[in-house]
Amino acid sequence: MTVSKSILVIGGDGFCGWPTALHLSRLGHDVMIVDDLSRRAIDGMMGADSLTPIADMETRLKAWTAASGQVIRFRRMDVAREFDALHALLDKERPEAIIHFGEQRAAPYSMRGLSEKRYTVDNNISATHNLLSAVTDLGFDPHVIHLGTMGVYGYDDDGIEIPEGYLRVYVPGDDRAIFQRDILYPTNPGSVYHMTKSMDQLLFQFYAKNDRLRITDLHQGIVWGTQTEETKRDERLINRFDYDGDYGTVLNRFLMQAVVGHPLTVHGTGGQTRAFIHIQDTVRCIAMAVENPPVDRGKVAILNQMTETHRVRDLARLVARLSGAEVAMVDNPRNEAAENDLRVSNKTFIDLGLKPITLADGLMEETQEIAAKYAHRCIREKIPCVSVWTGDQKPGVVKGAA
Amino acid sequence: MTVSKSILVIGGDGFCGWPTALHLSRLGHDVMIVDDLSRRAIDGMMGADSLTPIADMETRLKAWTAASGQVIRFRRMDVAREFDALHALLDKERPEAIIHFGEQRAAPYSMRGLSEKRYTVDNNISATHNLLSAVTDLGFDPHVIHLGTMGVYGYDDDGIEIPEGYLRVYVPGDDRAIFQRDILYPTNPGSVYHMTKSMDQLLFQFYAKNDRLRITDLHQGIVWGTQTEETKRDERLINRFDYDGDYGTVLNRFLMQAVVGHPLTVHGTGGQTRAFIHIQDTVRCIAMAVENPPVDRGKVAILNQMTETHRVRDLARLVARLSGAEVAMVDNPRNEAAENDLRVSNKTFIDLGLKPITLADGLMEETQEIAAKYAHRCIREKIPCVSVWTGDQKPGVVKGAA
Repeated sequence: MTVSKSILVIGGDGFCGWPTALHLSRLGHDVMIVDDLSRRAIDGMMGADSLTPIADMETRLKAWTAASGQVIRFRRMDVAREFDALHALLDKERPEAIIHFGEQRAAPYSMRGLSEKRYTVDNNISATHNLLSAVTDLGFDPHVIHLGTMGVYGYDDDGIEIPEGYLRVYVPGDDRAIFQRDILYPTNPGSVYHMTKSMDQLLFQFYAKNDRLRITDLHQGIVWGTQTEETKRDERLINRFDYDGDYGTVLNRFLMQAVVGHPLTVHGTGGQTRAFIHIQDTVRCIAMAVENPPVDRGKVAILNQMTETHRVRDLARLVARLSGAEVAMVDNPRNEAAENDLRVSNKTFIDLGLKPITLADGLMEETQEIAAKYAHRCIREKIPCVSVWTGDQKPGVVKGAA
Repeated sequence: MTVSKSILVIGGDGFCGWPTALHLSRLGHDVMIVDDLSRRAIDGMMGADSLTPIADMETRLKAWTAASGQVIRFRRMDVAREFDALHALLDKERPEAIIHFGEQRAAPYSMRGLSEKRYTVDNNISATHNLLSAVTDLGFDPHVIHLGTMGVYGYDDDGIEIPEGYLRVYVPGDDRAIFQRDILYPTNPGSVYHMTKSMDQLLFQFYAKNDRLRITDLHQGIVWGTQTEETKRDERLINRFDYDGDYGTVLNRFLMQAVVGHPLTVHGTGGQTRAFIHIQDTVRCIAMAVENPPVDRGKVAILNQMTETHRVRDLARLVARLSGAEVAMVDNPRNEAAENDLRVSNKTFIDLGLKPITLADGLMEETQEIAAKYAHRCIREKIPCVSVWTGDQKPGVVKGAA
């Protein structure tokens, strides 16, 4: 039986934040969303939009109360820029848990150009630091849960299973002594966005050590799927579905491309192996994290929030087989290894009882159905990725079918 | 013979920046200073001031031209907040080297309170990222030299000599294979200020890897001394001397305390071992770094800019013996190990020919003379450190003589 907690969800209007807020509310927690609605504003600036018709926040919240009998409160606030408002809100609410999704979260968007790079760094670092410094100043003791990313580890491919945040290493000292250290996994971010999450790790490390804050950092894989048990309850609760080159995640993009008859765009050789998780498992993992604050106050708890790994070209082939779509190899706009293996430990969530939803579970068809239902809303020109990682590169030229 | 280069010195009005600008100018480089004069503004806010009467920038620059025949240009600019001006300046000047001192540089100040913590993070991260993203956008190829700090390493005291930025570690893999990796030394910053320099390291790592920028990060020890060969040439060129609890560095504080008859304030047991460098060696090291850009474009060159290590209480005893001053043990406002050993590699600068100025060289007397000359300007209430690291702590209560 879950004991009800007061929980602030920063970024609770987004792709992961919204279904998380609903799930926690359904579990009986007293949920308040803080969001500046910047994700919707970026949609507007880019001329893209969620494939699914997401309702405005007022409608969403009314629909949730109608569907569940629960109330979720909402405050529009930019936590990176409106520090005094954040401080006052935290002082008044003193939530027992704070889920921090309040960051720009797309790697391609963060590489789009100068202003997007600067926005991503200034916004993400200030948002995280404003939260930590305000909590410290107020002297209350919330459990801060942050959405990190598997991308902080990088994809170095040297045969080591990626541990949960900390790597045990051995260092030769004098007189042939060998010192053992458990260090924060040496970070190797592949984009400005991933870099900000690596920098966040240092903020968390410091505030956990110096101020004894309780912090959990969830290094999440690439999220696929759209709906959760809660967002399915009413069409006005529907979750966003991004398919554009900047915000769409790879598997959802493939599913949508298949539906609209666009070739599945594989960057480079498609040999990149990445970690994945279904949105339903995302919200379950976060609920588990809420129930299990870190034991050691001096040290950030880092958990890998992913359930399976796949090579990108294998995913493309799978969707192609399922749908009859073609696969198109395009230049890779990213500065990354063409091929890598990846093994990841997700022991903590498995031990806590997570039963992963796998691609084999048939939910892919469900996501494809969502894509089919709203295919008429697709703007085809928004499908290619236009962001490039370095000045030498050209965006997404199709190199041929595979 | 030095080949003249165009060099931008960001933060060229500060304690290290000013003598660096003069030294590079004397060597024949074409130097331009960019500074927002924030260090002087902070003096005003804190009611403290440099013990030495530093001239305003216009006077300083005229005096330098009179003394040397060289011209140093100056632009007042806040590189963290005036991005468009920075971008335009870099586009016009396209300097061959950029020395980046443009950050809030005091650990105690960064721990003083909420607004100082936030200022330090927002200012330092935006300043560094603005510079890197503007250079990348403009596509020119300056050598970026950043002033880091020995404090990024932390003082873990586990018997390893601190290497120059990268630590060789061994990681057990599967099948009893052992992988060797050279990683960025696992950072363990002891203050918000040191944390920002640790975060800077990730900015440099990314831009060196992704955009092939040439970057040198100088992890500097605690600077002592006041004057350099160039700042001595005219009283209007005099360098700043901070003695207050926030900005004064430990040895300079002891020397000034001795002169004004204040007990030498040792925090905690004084068992902290730290790395030191004289300001004259600082400017020489930076000139050497200018002459020796990194060979490997994908990897930041990290050099330890320090010349000797000392235990704080030994320094206090040395100054006490020299001056007859008393030593007073006060509560340590910092959250740090009471005692630590420290061994540091400074191989690169030694191999490049640095002949370190040591405490034994008699320059300590010179600094003491500077302190004596301007002792009448000392505001005694500004001597104690009032910043504390956590809410539980009280600032600097004298615990008794030692």
